Amino acid sequence: MIVVLKNGVGKEQQDDLKRFLEGYGVKVSVTEGTQTTIFGLLGDTSNIDINAVEAQDAVETVKRVQEPYKKANRKFHPDNTEVKVGDLVIGGKKLTVIAGPCSVESEEQIVEIARRVKAAGATMLRGGAFKPRTSPYSFQGLHAEGLELLRIARKETGLPIVTEIMNTEDLDLFADVDVIQVGARSMQNFELLKELGKTDKPILLKRGLANTYEEMLMSAEYIMAGGNENVILCERGIRTYETFTRNTLDISAIPVLKRLSHLPVIIDPSHAAGLPWMVEPLSKASIAAGADGLIIEVHNNPAKALSDGAQSLTPDQFDGIMERLAPLAQVVDRTL
Amino acid sequence: MIVVLKNGVGKEQQDDLKRFLEGYGVKVSVTEGTQTTIFGLLGDTSNIDINAVEAQDAVETVKRVQEPYKKANRKFHPDNTEVKVGDLVIGGKKLTVIAGPCSVESEEQIVEIARRVKAAGATMLRGGAFKPRTSPYSFQGLHAEGLELLRIARKETGLPIVTEIMNTEDLDLFADVDVIQVGARSMQNFELLKELGKTDKPILLKRGLANTYEEMLMSAEYIMAGGNENVILCERGIRTYETFTRNTLDISAIPVLKRLSHLPVIIDPSHAAGLPWMVEPLSKASIAAGADGLIIEVHNNPAKALSDGAQSLTPDQFDGIMERLAPLAQVVDRTL
Amino acid sequence: MIVVLKNGVGKEQQDDLKRFLEGYGVKVSVTEGTQTTIFGLLGDTSNIDINAVEAQDAVETVKRVQEPYKKANRKFHPDNTEVKVGDLVIGGKKLTVIAGPCSVESEEQIVEIARRVKAAGATMLRGGAFKPRTSPYSFQGLHAEGLELLRIARKETGLPIVTEIMNTEDLDLFADVDVIQVGARSMQNFELLKELGKTDKPILLKRGLANTYEEMLMSAEYIMAGGNENVILCERGIRTYETFTRNTLDISAIPVLKRLSHLPVIIDPSHAAGLPWMVEPLSKASIAAGADGLIIEVHNNPAKALSDGAQSLTPDQFDGIMERLAPLAQVVDRTL
Amino acid sequence: MIVVLKNGVGKEQQDDLKRFLEGYGVKVSVTEGTQTTIFGLLGDTSNIDINAVEAQDAVETVKRVQEPYKKANRKFHPDNTEVKVGDLVIGGKKLTVIAGPCSVESEEQIVEIARRVKAAGATMLRGGAFKPRTSPYSFQGLHAEGLELLRIARKETGLPIVTEIMNTEDLDLFADVDVIQVGARSMQNFELLKELGKTDKPILLKRGLANTYEEMLMSAEYIMAGGNENVILCERGIRTYETFTRNTLDISAIPVLKRLSHLPVIIDPSHAAGLPWMVEPLSKASIAAGADGLIIEVHNNPAKALSDGAQSLTPDQFDGIMERLAPLAQVVDRTL
Repeated sequence: MIVVLKNGVGKEQQDDLKRFLEGYGVKVSVTEGTQTTIFGLLGDTSNIDINAVEAQDAVETVKRVQEPYKKANRKFHPDNTEVKVGDLVIGGKKLTVIAGPCSVESEEQIVEIARRVKAAGATMLRGGAFKPRTSPYSFQGLHAEGLELLRIARKETGLPIVTEIMNTEDLDLFADVDVIQVGARSMQNFELLKELGKTDKPILLKRGLANTYEEMLMSAEYIMAGGNENVILCERGIRTYETFTRNTLDISAIPVLKRLSHLPVIIDPSHAAGLPWMVEPLSKASIAAGADGLIIEVHNNPAKALSDGAQSLTPDQFDGIMERLAPLAQVVDRTL
Repeated sequence: MIVVLKNGVGKEQQDDLKRFLEGYGVKVSVTEGTQTTIFGLLGDTSNIDINAVEAQDAVETVKRVQEPYKKANRKFHPDNTEVKVGDLVIGGKKLTVIAGPCSVESEEQIVEIARRVKAAGATMLRGGAFKPRTSPYSFQGLHAEGLELLRIARKETGLPIVTEIMNTEDLDLFADVDVIQVGARSMQNFELLKELGKTDKPILLKRGLANTYEEMLMSAEYIMAGGNENVILCERGIRTYETFTRNTLDISAIPVLKRLSHLPVIIDPSHAAGLPWMVEPLSKASIAAGADGLIIEVHNNPAKALSDGAQSLTPDQFDGIMERLAPLAQVVDRTL
Repeated sequence: MIVVLKNGVGKEQQDDLKRFLEGYGVKVSVTEGTQTTIFGLLGDTSNIDINAVEAQDAVETVKRVQEPYKKANRKFHPDNTEVKVGDLVIGGKKLTVIAGPCSVESEEQIVEIARRVKAAGATMLRGGAFKPRTSPYSFQGLHAEGLELLRIARKETGLPIVTEIMNTEDLDLFADVDVIQVGARSMQNFELLKELGKTDKPILLKRGLANTYEEMLMSAEYIMAGGNENVILCERGIRTYETFTRNTLDISAIPVLKRLSHLPVIIDPSHAAGLPWMVEPLSKASIAAGADGLIIEVHNNPAKALSDGAQSLTPDQFDGIMERLAPLAQVVDRTL
Repeated sequence: MIVVLKNGVGKEQQDDLKRFLEGYGVKVSVTEGTQTTIFGLLGDTSNIDINAVEAQDAVETVKRVQEPYKKANRKFHPDNTEVKVGDLVIGGKKLTVIAGPCSVESEEQIVEIARRVKAAGATMLRGGAFKPRTSPYSFQGLHAEGLELLRIARKETGLPIVTEIMNTEDLDLFADVDVIQVGARSMQNFELLKELGKTDKPILLKRGLANTYEEMLMSAEYIMAGGNENVILCERGIRTYETFTRNTLDISAIPVLKRLSHLPVIIDPSHAAGLPWMVEPLSKASIAAGADGLIIEVHNNPAKALSDGAQSLTPDQFDGIMERLAPLAQVVDRTL
């Protein structure tokens, strides 16, 4: 951390500031110029509140050099983390493909879709029971019943299930869910993250629609600081000025997150664009860029879906995409 | 709502789509061009899921004409809503000024600040007991103890208290809080909004850092749909590409939200810029543009604040600003 | 400027880098930590290409402390710059109000509008002769004839004229224009800026739709580096994710630009929102926040305007706004 | 185009508006609801100025259905356009790889780099002679001399040359340049686009840093409307809130632009991220998503480059990437 002092700060005030900073357990190195004095902070600065330093009278500006996250930081964990879900490994050579409907609607629906996506090569089943909808007048999910239907689909197909939690009060209901998803709107629901940190469940953490890489890794850090290191990062499109697509897929998130962190990174091409014909090119781009997997919306009858039908693929379309992704995975030394 | 059909959609498919849309209880008017056929939907379209319409095979694109919110919509409630907090009125001629520290830290701190801001003309006291912090290693607030200290400060000064809730499980602790704040990161925590809709508490709803006006009003609608119409909207800066300020104050939110909705609008100039020297010009701009009030961070010792010290005013600075705001309020026919 | 070295950079490489940096005429102060070595650069760093430093093998990251602009920087010119246009002063106590149509369309139109805005208190006339239109099929302006009509309107009313230049080849045509406008799309047309720097004309420099404060001041620096210090900065709305308004007025630009620079700052509320009913609240906010003036679109027949009619005020509306702005100006110690 | 009328607009005013719209040569179909009246405009609406319609008193809002561009629109030109540069084809099965330094610096430099990139498989040479630099104090390019050095490198290697134009006055100097580049900052320099439309040169049109797909295609339309249909679109990263990378590569631009338009699309991974280690994953993603080519910065001595050294690859790095891209190209049925 580098602290630039205001012009004209006297010796005494400098010494006070130096002592204040040393209180954080770091060494302070002073560089005095004709106009500007700079303090370099050496040691572990991750527990220093940058805002508290900026609030000191003598301080002009503060610049971080070290990242503020530790457990999620590749510097301290050079090897890739592999998250285990039963026999499955997320972040290994085999790509993870999670597929299923936006919302669980009925036993027939979820079981049929589960069978189809499994046949096409998906390794996990997604489906929402608690749905964060922009409008209070939209379908809000089947809640506990939806989770029960997911369990039935798991029993029928053997596919582990991934589903979203929205509130700490519902945590008990998720006891036998295989992967708990934290949605984009909850990425900074810190109370929820803390509770999930106390479990040992794999957590699929989606990036908030306008959150930075650093903020995302700090949210992962919340979960990991609680003791749960089974975090899977998921990029699902960010908000930009462009309105043709629902969001803008940030493909750079793949190489950046994998460089900054050791956690697996998967991509959600369905929400990123909101347009089914874009799922294929975005999936291809993601695998080529080094993603560890995909999460794709598939519905057996998009026109009758209770949510997000417009961006869902049909099982037939999903079959075709999976076939065309396989040789691409091979070229980048992965398997599908 | 206007539905544009794909080119080449036949008569039968058109009829199917027409019946599907009429199922929502609206009248469908058909405009047939040489290339394009357009369906106009007449009646109440607020309960139509636009995504479900887009998911129909025959549909090229759908455009909304009516707003998707009703209770928050000025069209159906032409008069300004005034939210009552004891004897105070938010949204009336007298401007609301909420002031206080980012976090409640001690009895001495909160009582002293409460006295100072009251003397300067503030009408409510703010202070955080549950703090949404980006880092798990930062101070997270005093929780129940912090709420107790706010009550003491209220008793000492008579100022109603405004404080943030982060989780539905804490709702009981907020039973005698005067105004419950929903922070920017929780604006789309729909489970929390639903619970708050069941109370009769005034809710200060902050805009999410990258949420549109429509999304903000839909979040207000969540609370109001539950029966609680005491919603106060708060603009606190949005995320843009500019990095000099922490966020970018969207001053246009004032005239826009007041045109689209009947709810009061207040501005948070402290979080918007993150720089104490900008609080004054942004406060002036807000009042001139028609805001119903301000929420300002004041700390008796910013350099020792446990959070957000860098953007807090001292009580002396706050005194000066309040003095200079008063004549401005008068010019736009308000009082301070 | 602060240069953070990569971990593990040896003594020799450090010495090479130190010599390289000293080649820019600055003093390099070295801070050695256990993990990180930091170089502090002391002296004038404004002519150092930050990218060239980042390109050095030993360098992890570079952070600027000093601003890269000099002539536009308030640090080196503490007093406000006042730009003279005949007897008018831009940046003085009296606010500058520039009004007129988007495009000059006919003698009758421009003269009538000029008379009306003058009567209402405007001090300069705006009108476009060269129009940057998104579509090649839209009206592109009257070019030389438009400039001639502006001269007629100036003769009839005495109002100095402000009009936009798009191309260096047209510069001769602008010889007797009073203030030359550089539009948002041309803010980084550096060849144009250089040519304008060789003239002594007042230049109204509009902020590009997604440019930072620093980039804007660097564009001012281009003009000033050529010898022309008569630069007026103009904020006209930036591009964000919000689509209700055409752009988002960045009201913070006023206090920020006036702190960083000594140049006058005026606001364009017409383009910022693109909605005529928002011109008044945004104008009020701008004056309250300390703007030196406004540039407002007024058309005698918006429904027949050849461009931007939808955001233009009628002369009657403009009259009303000017009346209501006057007392506000007084409260912030300005005159209208 | 769909025109929604204000509530309460009377019969006479409706008829006036209908006549006004019919004046554009379109048929107007009227849909009358209990609250809202909607006009559907049928026929060619691309020459209707949407703003002029919005400016009519009776109009609440206007929504486009048809795209405002014609010559660039795939609807009217279903087949892919192939742009010829000598024997090369841009937009065919073989991918186009343009490589070279940011700036031309010397004969030795440009010739050496040209030889290396040719050996690695590049099909064209890039190099800037006129450089748009944010700071007036940075190296601005060698201008005419730089173009001469590019000609020498072309003679030595046979590689066609691609270089940027910034001003219409320089057009004569570009007479024997193979592909003229319009930089991001000039994407809406409409006077320049019009002049380029009068030539028959292939134009590499870069997307502005915050421009929409539609604006980009309207800029292509400017060139094509003048008679020059040899336009190559180039995505090079857009501006978002994320600061880790210089810009954010919009990978979706590839499928979107290719769906909306018949023009070739190439990607600039060097400027998109500004980080050399990201060139490879972004190049792979681009090819996988269907790009027609890449433009990559390569410098024989990045640490000594006069511009953009920090994002340039060395020739050795470029060799490696080209080798690893080849099998990927094959999988998506392209050749490198």
